Amino acid sequence: MNVPIKLGTIHGVGLGPGAQDLLSVRADRLVRGTRHVAYFRKAGRPGQARRIAEGMLRDDVVEIAMEYPVTTEIPLADPRYNASLSAFYAECTERLSALALAGEDVAVLCEGDPFFYGSFMHLHSRLMDRVPVHVVPGITGMTGAWTATGMPITWGDDVLTVAMATLPEDELIRRIRDTDSLVVMKIGRNLPKLRRAVAAAGREKAAWLVEYAAMPEQRVILLTEAIEVTPYFSILLIHGQGRRP
Amino acid sequence: MNVPIKLGTIHGVGLGPGAQDLLSVRADRLVRGTRHVAYFRKAGRPGQARRIAEGMLRDDVVEIAMEYPVTTEIPLADPRYNASLSAFYAECTERLSALALAGEDVAVLCEGDPFFYGSFMHLHSRLMDRVPVHVVPGITGMTGAWTATGMPITWGDDVLTVAMATLPEDELIRRIRDTDSLVVMKIGRNLPKLRRAVAAAGREKAAWLVEYAAMPEQRVILLTEAIEVTPYFSILLIHGQGRRP
Ligand SMILES: C[S@@+](CC[C@H](N)C(=O)[O-])C[C@H]1O[C@@H](n2cnc3c(N)ncnc32)[C@H](O)[C@@H]1O
Ligand SMILES: C[S@@+](CC[C@H](N)C(=O)[O-])C[C@H]1O[C@@H](n2cnc3c(N)ncnc32)[C@H](O)[C@@H]1O
Repeated sequence: MNVPIKLGTIHGVGLGPGAQDLLSVRADRLVRGTRHVAYFRKAGRPGQARRIAEGMLRDDVVEIAMEYPVTTEIPLADPRYNASLSAFYAECTERLSALALAGEDVAVLCEGDPFFYGSFMHLHSRLMDRVPVHVVPGITGMTGAWTATGMPITWGDDVLTVAMATLPEDELIRRIRDTDSLVVMKIGRNLPKLRRAVAAAGREKAAWLVEYAAMPEQRVILLTEAIEVTPYFSILLIHGQGRRP
Repeated sequence: MNVPIKLGTIHGVGLGPGAQDLLSVRADRLVRGTRHVAYFRKAGRPGQARRIAEGMLRDDVVEIAMEYPVTTEIPLADPRYNASLSAFYAECTERLSALALAGEDVAVLCEGDPFFYGSFMHLHSRLMDRVPVHVVPGITGMTGAWTATGMPITWGDDVLTVAMATLPEDELIRRIRDTDSLVVMKIGRNLPKLRRAVAAAGREKAAWLVEYAAMPEQRVILLTEAIEVTPYFSILLIHGQGRRP
């Protein structure tokens, strides 16, 4: 006899910037209650999202580690870079949709918010026409970062620009000149370029660097105090100076 | 005998965009556990932050409603506008710091994230040299809004611009033309101006309007479907189209 199975749901769960008590109540329930838990990681690394959830998973959890293909030798502009990632996301999609089709829910752990420069988005777009997908928003890394500085990021009519440090130096300079308040993400090895751009825009003394916001290693320094490298989990901030009655 | 009192802490608590289970675990604990609970509201209105916390407060809660002075007759450019608000924030600061000096903790309810265009910031800057102040980050209204559209807001190297609809029309047009992905807040009566600006920038078909994100009245429409007014709690979004392997 063929009993139709109720489809499972793939939940993209925003975990927030790092601290376990910064998960939303909804995310907390899903992470603790779902049997199948998936997450991205680099080969040989624990993965930041998985690290945040340490100690929260069910005893009978089934973990699905989705390991990024090693692309360090392929330049970003090479079509093989995209092809390799695309094949990887397609394969993850197969794994997760097979579970949903078998009636199992899956919680995909996402650092920060899933829809803000997140890897889960590449699964979401592939899964959404096949199985039920549901997104739980999270506190973004940048919100964790400005909270760590103890200063509000935007006031009154301030314009906030969010840019990636992977942009060309000229473009970074132009963006920094043309905004009240600034967030720059994906810094890592782009730090020297970013420092030059901030200096060229005349904002070096107002720029803060937050490493590992809301994580145990959190560190808040002025950009001028930074050395040549900064971890992948770092954010540059320039606070707005808008109207304050 | 004079026993020195342990100072209380003023907690600026981000409640997130609306749903109760989108409070962080940390915020949830503070809202349920703190006896003195303060929030801003317009005279005669319940206040959005207080509304989110409905049913969560302690039985013996002491509520501190901080009612904005009525400034509707004073134009924003008039110095009396700022003076009136400034006196109001100073008065709220006195009320809250008196409690902290008497050893009482206070939870100040903040819609979204406290440090992102929030009213609490005006208390924070006045309180911070006087009594212990602590900020709990929250999921921003814009994160609630893009989650409601079911589409990621930013991909790859997309630039995200956040602007207020209170900006001059020319400035809005320029900002919309010069960004990949867009968030506009504080819309309300500025909707007609914003529509003209989005149309002038040629992005009208890509613009979404989210009213009351994550609240019971949530509504997601295309900007072209909007009528002349939209509530204060609405956000305009244009999703980025960056790299997607
Ligand atoms: C692929 S993006 C993911 C963003 C994430 N979805 C979010 O909502 O913040 C990775 C970048 O986010 C930033 N980031 C995210 N969380 C962070 C944290 N807790 N501390 C510092 N940087 C963080 C870093 O700049 C990092 O390079
Ligand atoms: C004074 S700002 C407060 C922002 C808040 N602190 C945050 O983190 O989102 C008020 C503006 O935020 C936007 N907003 C905040 N929450 C919202 C929600 N749940 N739905 C729609 N708009 C929201 C609206 O544009 C509103 O005019």
